[in-house]
Amino acid sequence: MNFKGQIMPARETILKELLEASHLQGIEALLSWDQETYMPEGAGAARAEQVAYITTLMHSKQVGEPLKKALEELINLQTGELRVMTLNDRETRQLKEIWRDYRQEASLPTHFVTELAKHASVSQQAWVRARKDNDFAFFEPFLSKMVQLQKEKAKYLASGNTDYDSLLDQFEPEMTSDKISVLFDELRVRLVPLIQKIQEVKHRVNGSLLTKEYDIGKQWDFGVSVLEAIGFDLNTGRQDRSAHPFTTSTHPTDVRTTTRLRGNDIRSALLSTLHEGGHGLYEQGLPVEEYGNPLGQAISLGIHESQSRLWENLVGLSPSFWRFAYPKLHAKFPDQLKNADRDMFYAAMNRVRPSMIRVEADEATYNLHIMLRFEIEKQLINENYPVAKLPELWNKKMEEYLGITPANDTEGVLQDVHWSFGAFGYFPTYTLGNLYSVQFFNQVKKEISGLDESFARGDFSGLLNWLRKNIHSKGRGRKAEELILELAGQPLSAGPFMDYLEEKYTRVYSLS
Amino acid sequence: MNFKGQIMPARETILKELLEASHLQGIEALLSWDQETYMPEGAGAARAEQVAYITTLMHSKQVGEPLKKALEELINLQTGELRVMTLNDRETRQLKEIWRDYRQEASLPTHFVTELAKHASVSQQAWVRARKDNDFAFFEPFLSKMVQLQKEKAKYLASGNTDYDSLLDQFEPEMTSDKISVLFDELRVRLVPLIQKIQEVKHRVNGSLLTKEYDIGKQWDFGVSVLEAIGFDLNTGRQDRSAHPFTTSTHPTDVRTTTRLRGNDIRSALLSTLHEGGHGLYEQGLPVEEYGNPLGQAISLGIHESQSRLWENLVGLSPSFWRFAYPKLHAKFPDQLKNADRDMFYAAMNRVRPSMIRVEADEATYNLHIMLRFEIEKQLINENYPVAKLPELWNKKMEEYLGITPANDTEGVLQDVHWSFGAFGYFPTYTLGNLYSVQFFNQVKKEISGLDESFARGDFSGLLNWLRKNIHSKGRGRKAEELILELAGQPLSAGPFMDYLEEKYTRVYSLS
Repeated sequence: MNFKGQIMPARETILKELLEASHLQGIEALLSWDQETYMPEGAGAARAEQVAYITTLMHSKQVGEPLKKALEELINLQTGELRVMTLNDRETRQLKEIWRDYRQEASLPTHFVTELAKHASVSQQAWVRARKDNDFAFFEPFLSKMVQLQKEKAKYLASGNTDYDSLLDQFEPEMTSDKISVLFDELRVRLVPLIQKIQEVKHRVNGSLLTKEYDIGKQWDFGVSVLEAIGFDLNTGRQDRSAHPFTTSTHPTDVRTTTRLRGNDIRSALLSTLHEGGHGLYEQGLPVEEYGNPLGQAISLGIHESQSRLWENLVGLSPSFWRFAYPKLHAKFPDQLKNADRDMFYAAMNRVRPSMIRVEADEATYNLHIMLRFEIEKQLINENYPVAKLPELWNKKMEEYLGITPANDTEGVLQDVHWSFGAFGYFPTYTLGNLYSVQFFNQVKKEISGLDESFARGDFSGLLNWLRKNIHSKGRGRKAEELILELAGQPLSAGPFMDYLEEKYTRVYSLS
Repeated sequence: MNFKGQIMPARETILKELLEASHLQGIEALLSWDQETYMPEGAGAARAEQVAYITTLMHSKQVGEPLKKALEELINLQTGELRVMTLNDRETRQLKEIWRDYRQEASLPTHFVTELAKHASVSQQAWVRARKDNDFAFFEPFLSKMVQLQKEKAKYLASGNTDYDSLLDQFEPEMTSDKISVLFDELRVRLVPLIQKIQEVKHRVNGSLLTKEYDIGKQWDFGVSVLEAIGFDLNTGRQDRSAHPFTTSTHPTDVRTTTRLRGNDIRSALLSTLHEGGHGLYEQGLPVEEYGNPLGQAISLGIHESQSRLWENLVGLSPSFWRFAYPKLHAKFPDQLKNADRDMFYAAMNRVRPSMIRVEADEATYNLHIMLRFEIEKQLINENYPVAKLPELWNKKMEEYLGITPANDTEGVLQDVHWSFGAFGYFPTYTLGNLYSVQFFNQVKKEISGLDESFARGDFSGLLNWLRKNIHSKGRGRKAEELILELAGQPLSAGPFMDYLEEKYTRVYSLS
């Protein structure tokens, strides 16, 4: 089948089919965005039908005969061996990624895709209600069914050594729980003593000035000004409010982030704005000329989280960022901040203490929240741990890892949206993102001099251009492990991240 | 093919295919709603692709082989003659309407549907820009192409005596321009003298209190409270802002209206809120158990407009409505309204005077705006009138009909969105709606006593229930002309509307 004359038509067919699948994906993104932002509450059941329908169409397109036939001309669908010799490196890479996606989708029967999409929408809506009402019992049957569906999905995917690894592989290709365990162990051995050390001198930082009354409208305006400062383009993106902050994209020219605002907390909204802004910058920086094929897509969730965590923490919790931003914030909230100088404010923003909510945790304890979820996920998927006993397990592990116990399930096991729509194997990518981000950022600092001074002037373009050039514009042009090796000259490891944390908190807490 | 055993499967196939088409239609509605409300400006080109793609899928579903084959078992696709004898009245009606839709869709080639949808999205975006910049020349090529596409569409549809009639038939089935001309003549002969008579005593009503400074946030809150009062369900609907107010529905449980707010005009937003609210009530009142087939859809645009114009004018511009609403409005704007009693305010709201903008016109001159558009549309579609000369023609007719000339195209030929997305034959339905609405409302007043007293108490449920029972819940269960005969005991005519206007303005302007 590998007559040269057929190569171009086959590639064209493939790209055309994938472009149509991308239209459907963008449309699905809008349906889901709307569900979380503006949809009337009573429309939930109808929306679940619509999402399931569009997801099914997308799946049919991704595994349809036209795509399959064209793909088979170029590559052995079983082994991934190329059948043509005339593709250049870029085309080869593209084809290999298309093949990876195809195999993944083709392993899932259409009826299963429909059922899963329908349940994901319904179950996420049930989670919203359960969380609001602090009613895990209401959510339990939805989550139980979701766990069953995910186990079933893992069997279909069969891409890992365990069911959990098969699920993980969707979000972080070629990552395994064994590799994660090694990284997490490496992390834990330095992180736990650091947190203990800080706990002994915790009185040195007081966070109370962050929880005064901060007008929500002014917080919103400040957040938007920060989004613009870091380079988020409001002509091709927007920000809204939602219960759980997220970023989605209907196309690289339509990237949408959300944030969560609280009247008595200035830190929460600002960091979630920066976090989602980091995701948004990645999506806006994907090469639009590759839209509709893997070269126009993000590498992995771990790399995606490296971008959000980089802007949230390495930028947003840095002294030089606040040299720029603090005078502006102070001008907006002169009363609330009247007794605080920049150093006090900076220290408060960086206070370390065990807390209930992952998304509001400091950079150190954050990773303990992830380790806890990673362990629970594995038990749920690989070991049939009963969903009904989840609150108990959660609270036990919170005590074990963080020394605190949630007062209720809303601030415990119900806090995160992920499991409700079936994202098992997603959580570890947050900590992977932390590790990646420091390795990338160390490299940026080596290559660009005067970065702190630019930040202090409100100029983040040097950093953004580096990320655009080296990460965003590459799409899935390399794998995550190739990228880190290429950019940082070393594989992913916990060392640089821990060096960063130890240096930072030694400074903030005057540790000896 | 009409073995009895095959009837049910055929009907089931038809309903299943149509339900899927309805999912796509609901999704398309969301894409378009978003385009007009929240979409970032830079996403326009991508959105046009998405809309075109989903529209093409919908068309393919509506004319696809499964539907066609099943339909052919039950009905002769050429003649509409039934092939089975076992259907009851409801099923027969449903099948006839499905057949009507099928014939209409099947007459359009898929490539044409795609091209039209793509151009409609692009052209509407061009209109937004041209209107903002008062730049008809920028819009002209988009509109010219749209006129060509509509002529082409009319040839495909071939359902009327003229091209224009074929287009009209999409919006108002079985209506013709000849019938409309008769109705419009009947209207004109009484309307023009009435307006002249009012012009002679125009000093008797002063509208200046409506154009003071009215805070936009308070206007919004007042509008929402009115929407709730008339029965619009915010659990299955919502209101937003847009440049051109509209109503859309992704499903009967998700009905969305928009309004337009101006800081120096209290009348405009309120009436557009009520107008779109009337459309919204119709959509929310469609029988959800018939979702996905014609019995779950609105009869025609004329009937749709009868609902919006009824709530906007017959309710919202009635004395009894303001007995309820004026104290509330006064409480929100005590300064602006301090020298105005309810009668003064009511008269101001009902002031008649020739003005540039259709959607802001009073009940009398409004219909002149429609007659003007009706004539221009016919010239564009049937007589190849050159698009480039449209502003000239528009201004000439404004002078002729209303005695005023637009200062620029933004308040002239560029004011309406309709032509930009290809809605030719739509405008007459507004005046048809006015006529229908009075005939319906006269009947409501006969059947329900004490209506004015209920309105004055803020209770609109009697009216809404009547509309729900007699119109909304019937879907396309009868044709427009059957409905008016059934409910009002007479065919559509301009008489009752003119009786209403003459009585009203004799009162408001103390005419002799």
